[in-house]
Amino acid sequence: MNQDTICAIATAQGGAIGSIRVSGPEAISITSRIFKPGKSNRKFNEQKPYTLTFGRIYNGKEIIDEVLVSLFRSPHSYTGEDCTEITCHGSSYILQQVMQLLIKNGCRMAQPGEYTQRAFLNGKMDLSQAEAVADLIASSSAATHRLAMSQMRGGFSKELTDLRGKLLDFTSMVELELDFSEEDVEFADRQALRQLADEIEEVISRLVNSFNVGNAIKNGVPVAIIGETNAGKSTLLNVLLNEDKAIVSDIHGTTRDVIEDTVNMGGITFRFIDTAGIRETNDMIENLGIERTFQKLDQAEIVLWIVDATDANSQIIQLSEQILPRCEGKHLIVVFNKAEIIHKTQKDSLRTFFQQNFLQEHTDMIFISAKQKLHTDELEKMLVNAAHLPNITQNDIIVTNVRHYEALTKALEAIHRVQEGLDVQISGDFLSQDIREVIFHISDIAGEVTNDMVLQNIFRNFCIGK
Amino acid sequence: MNQDTICAIATAQGGAIGSIRVSGPEAISITSRIFKPGKSNRKFNEQKPYTLTFGRIYNGKEIIDEVLVSLFRSPHSYTGEDCTEITCHGSSYILQQVMQLLIKNGCRMAQPGEYTQRAFLNGKMDLSQAEAVADLIASSSAATHRLAMSQMRGGFSKELTDLRGKLLDFTSMVELELDFSEEDVEFADRQALRQLADEIEEVISRLVNSFNVGNAIKNGVPVAIIGETNAGKSTLLNVLLNEDKAIVSDIHGTTRDVIEDTVNMGGITFRFIDTAGIRETNDMIENLGIERTFQKLDQAEIVLWIVDATDANSQIIQLSEQILPRCEGKHLIVVFNKAEIIHKTQKDSLRTFFQQNFLQEHTDMIFISAKQKLHTDELEKMLVNAAHLPNITQNDIIVTNVRHYEALTKALEAIHRVQEGLDVQISGDFLSQDIREVIFHISDIAGEVTNDMVLQNIFRNFCIGK
Repeated sequence: MNQDTICAIATAQGGAIGSIRVSGPEAISITSRIFKPGKSNRKFNEQKPYTLTFGRIYNGKEIIDEVLVSLFRSPHSYTGEDCTEITCHGSSYILQQVMQLLIKNGCRMAQPGEYTQRAFLNGKMDLSQAEAVADLIASSSAATHRLAMSQMRGGFSKELTDLRGKLLDFTSMVELELDFSEEDVEFADRQALRQLADEIEEVISRLVNSFNVGNAIKNGVPVAIIGETNAGKSTLLNVLLNEDKAIVSDIHGTTRDVIEDTVNMGGITFRFIDTAGIRETNDMIENLGIERTFQKLDQAEIVLWIVDATDANSQIIQLSEQILPRCEGKHLIVVFNKAEIIHKTQKDSLRTFFQQNFLQEHTDMIFISAKQKLHTDELEKMLVNAAHLPNITQNDIIVTNVRHYEALTKALEAIHRVQEGLDVQISGDFLSQDIREVIFHISDIAGEVTNDMVLQNIFRNFCIGK
Repeated sequence: MNQDTICAIATAQGGAIGSIRVSGPEAISITSRIFKPGKSNRKFNEQKPYTLTFGRIYNGKEIIDEVLVSLFRSPHSYTGEDCTEITCHGSSYILQQVMQLLIKNGCRMAQPGEYTQRAFLNGKMDLSQAEAVADLIASSSAATHRLAMSQMRGGFSKELTDLRGKLLDFTSMVELELDFSEEDVEFADRQALRQLADEIEEVISRLVNSFNVGNAIKNGVPVAIIGETNAGKSTLLNVLLNEDKAIVSDIHGTTRDVIEDTVNMGGITFRFIDTAGIRETNDMIENLGIERTFQKLDQAEIVLWIVDATDANSQIIQLSEQILPRCEGKHLIVVFNKAEIIHKTQKDSLRTFFQQNFLQEHTDMIFISAKQKLHTDELEKMLVNAAHLPNITQNDIIVTNVRHYEALTKALEAIHRVQEGLDVQISGDFLSQDIREVIFHISDIAGEVTNDMVLQNIFRNFCIGK
């Protein structure tokens, strides 16, 4: 339990009302020192938990504001500590005054995420639930909200905890064998262990695989737009970004200049990866730039290859050697731009050419005019189909967090070693080591083995007051 | 009492927590429909007032958020109606979802200021107190906060209410005389009435006079910067506005381009009134522009007359005829700019010239270089001294509101007529009419005679959710 009492403004500036949270062993006594209930016979520190008291915040004799103060007693509060919450008029001057009074009376200004960190440290939630709080606050669509809510309600950590308990039982049996190693006994039923390992492998695989979907929902489906410099890349990007669509702002980003553009289409967030224009060149430096463009292509799930329809054949021949191998496993959409300029016969021959040379699964083609916004709606529909995100519910368990993904990937590697070890009947001490590693990585997700530095990293991305 | 139930988001976007207020006869039952307490044996609508209940907001089977909900019962709430307040995670998505649920279940979206308007209509506060709520939320300095707090605590409306009561007694006596007009009796003691009229005249005069101070504190001390076009007006303005000073943002303003620049110096807010440069001209249209500049000068309490020191004599001679008469009752500061260019002897002769031609109360002079920021600090000190605002406390009664000022000015005119009428012993019916007018204007401040349109005007400047 923390020894100091923290305070923070929990609401954004500029509303009708503002709220200050106080948490820690002195929360109620410090609040009592600056707050006088409206009914003078009432004492704030004698109020029942989960009540509101009307009164005034005083700085000496000066009234700072008329407020409502909530009171919560440990352990029945968000942080598990004694807590108060002062709701005042939403003037930044008043909020600052109240904060100063609290600090003068012994509070410390809270770090970002410190309330949730305390909730985690006091056992009110596990780490993956705590991490979901930040996602919940940042949620800006039905899908991101559902993912965060599912995770906050326990999500996959509940499922993993069960499996971990069973693994722990097995590993203690295996370790018991080691004590009797000279007698060559087997306390742990190898067949049952193999069954459990398979079960765990299946669950973890499913979770690891869900990360692609989770990441696409949370951060947007990555789309690379590539093509020659004059093919109309930027015009098309502007059309996709600006037409009647709210640009989804990136929570962690600072300016739109340095982050990738994200946009919501058909309920799906797309994240457009900017690439430099490609030009056939012998210049070594320019070739380096093009190489970088192709590297960015690796991050994409969907590739929009913009081709100038008036010069299509030569562009396709020049670039297909470089682009096609890099599109494996991705959805490729070949966009013939400036299609308003060419004749129908040219289109037909392009279509034939495309079908002969490209037609495969996950490849589409379309004729558009970015400038005149012709058929760009159809291109959008094509993008939405290409994203093929499943409809998720609050009960779907989907990994969205990179830290969880990494821990699960490591757990998966370790469980594979357990499976292989069982197949080749390795000795109990090696088996035990691999099982311990699976347990470690699963525990890491719930925060049970997580060290302080990792914790700090997690919570410093939170907002102040949460 | 209103028949409909209103809801609004009361916190600004982007905080850790968000708050939605619901008020009206159905507040508790509508909230019950979308909120399920965490302890399933609890019913929200059976909770005691001034309690908080933890639970979840549901849209059908989908959980929208885990929340805390406050409950207040009429008449013991801010609006005087049944109220609930839903505190959820500060995601705009979640807040919008909760609002949509409330509206779907019978709430109406609140108008700006509608909570405070209902508080006024339900007799929880008088109109001047209600108006102070908006000022309190907008308060950005100790002085504006003190003024708003004093007014919200009853301020001068309390003082006026006493005097009005006494006036009402007198006027009924005077009106009783009218019923017995043929008998020529005097129920109302004319000498006591004269005493009361003097007392009221004194109080109202004091309040009317306090408006200059109140207005200067609330909106800033108006300072006009005038001078010839090339004298360095805009350079000086930039120096005064930008150097290490937070520019006070205007709450009602939209862009800084259309409002006057305000800046905090020495704890006092100054409002710089932009004027066009003055040039001696025979062009009629340009003369009109200059005339407009001089009209703006009338709004100022302090006039900064910028004179190019290298051309000082001719500028002063050309303009003093036009400027000086308009500075009567104002504080004039003659600023010799570009002083770094001229010699000490020139400065001395300018100083002598100034002392011979200008020296009077409320006139200062100073040599500066706006470009090199020489002596601009001293100019700032000069401005702070010229503002001569008194130190106010929460107990000082100061009028800051234009509506109140106008009502008080009309009340003052009427009380003057009462005084004069008593002096010349006018008949009771005329006297009664003037007394009634005083009462009307005093009542107007507390909102007792205010009509709907005026009310709407007052509350539409509030923020949503208050």
